[in-house]
Amino acid sequence: MNKDRGLLIVLSGPSGVGKGTVRKAFMQDAEEVQYSISVTTRKPREGEVDGVDYFFKSHSEFEEMIENNKLLEYAQFVDNYYGTPVDYVEETLDSGRDVLLEIEVQGAKQVRNHFPEGAYIFLMPPSLTELRNRIVNRGTETDDVIDNRMGVAKEEIELIDQYDYIVENDQVELACERMRAIITAEHLRRDRIAHHYKNVSEV
Amino acid sequence: MNKDRGLLIVLSGPSGVGKGTVRKAFMQDAEEVQYSISVTTRKPREGEVDGVDYFFKSHSEFEEMIENNKLLEYAQFVDNYYGTPVDYVEETLDSGRDVLLEIEVQGAKQVRNHFPEGAYIFLMPPSLTELRNRIVNRGTETDDVIDNRMGVAKEEIELIDQYDYIVENDQVELACERMRAIITAEHLRRDRIAHHYKNVSEV
Repeated sequence: MNKDRGLLIVLSGPSGVGKGTVRKAFMQDAEEVQYSISVTTRKPREGEVDGVDYFFKSHSEFEEMIENNKLLEYAQFVDNYYGTPVDYVEETLDSGRDVLLEIEVQGAKQVRNHFPEGAYIFLMPPSLTELRNRIVNRGTETDDVIDNRMGVAKEEIELIDQYDYIVENDQVELACERMRAIITAEHLRRDRIAHHYKNVSEV
Repeated sequence: MNKDRGLLIVLSGPSGVGKGTVRKAFMQDAEEVQYSISVTTRKPREGEVDGVDYFFKSHSEFEEMIENNKLLEYAQFVDNYYGTPVDYVEETLDSGRDVLLEIEVQGAKQVRNHFPEGAYIFLMPPSLTELRNRIVNRGTETDDVIDNRMGVAKEEIELIDQYDYIVENDQVELACERMRAIITAEHLRRDRIAHHYKNVSEV
């Protein structure tokens, strides 16, 4: 069987739902998927490493990437930029490997314009009460920031119709299992693989 | 979460590919899926039980079901009828359980007209050479019947574009795993479940 282009998997969802936690747990057992490291201007949280969790950049460095069309998508969120380097994604997909993006809801829409054939997964909190608890427990935000985030989260959930799948993040390991099933199924979709079987009659 | 209508899963593919073997192996570990027993006029093979593998009917009994619109689909194949009782499928789906149909390619097209929202899986042989081996090894057919079946199989594979997924039957257990991933993913599709989350803002 010829090597197909890799599958683009986009994991998004409201701020605070636990995208980073799910992504890290998922990647520990996903040898066939390459995580695309995002670029951000926000400051590293405790334990975050440059070039592993994010590429941490200054505002002026980030704006230079925008001007040079080096970003597949970018979003500004609570005074910081987040973006996805385009060359890395294209080259990895061309090599036949799947690529996972973990991005904000604003950015997912831009990626969809570029890659309509990707698998778009919306990570959903069990409830807004639970979402608020998670943001509060993170402990890095003031009350004003929390209220702001909750308002943004409600708007983000309204955009759910732009996604192919909804994965509830009730438990991290369950969310990872659901993502694995989605990726397996996407690789079996007839519109992706039928061309391998068009000549089976001549085998 | 409210109980949704069940998912209709249609397993089809060319004669001889091993649909029955895969279906039986799948159902051994699929408590949430109900297998819809087909009606047929063909004679039971060794070990097949009426009411378990098929409902075995005479030609006149089958034709009476056709006249009374009691069949979701039916197909005539090598002098025999195969069909799916419609009431059983509708009632099981309404109760919230998934239903698996294992049917011939001719029938799958009729079911799609009735249930466009189902998950349609085409079980594919690794090659036509392997398909012929499987038909020969079954040992119940004459050379003429085998040639006839191979001709039909080639035509059936041409209809692959009517399906959502292609599952290669290289190993029965692998084929079952792929089916399980497809069913999990289908239950996570946004267009099936977004209505559960439309009111999350008020939770």
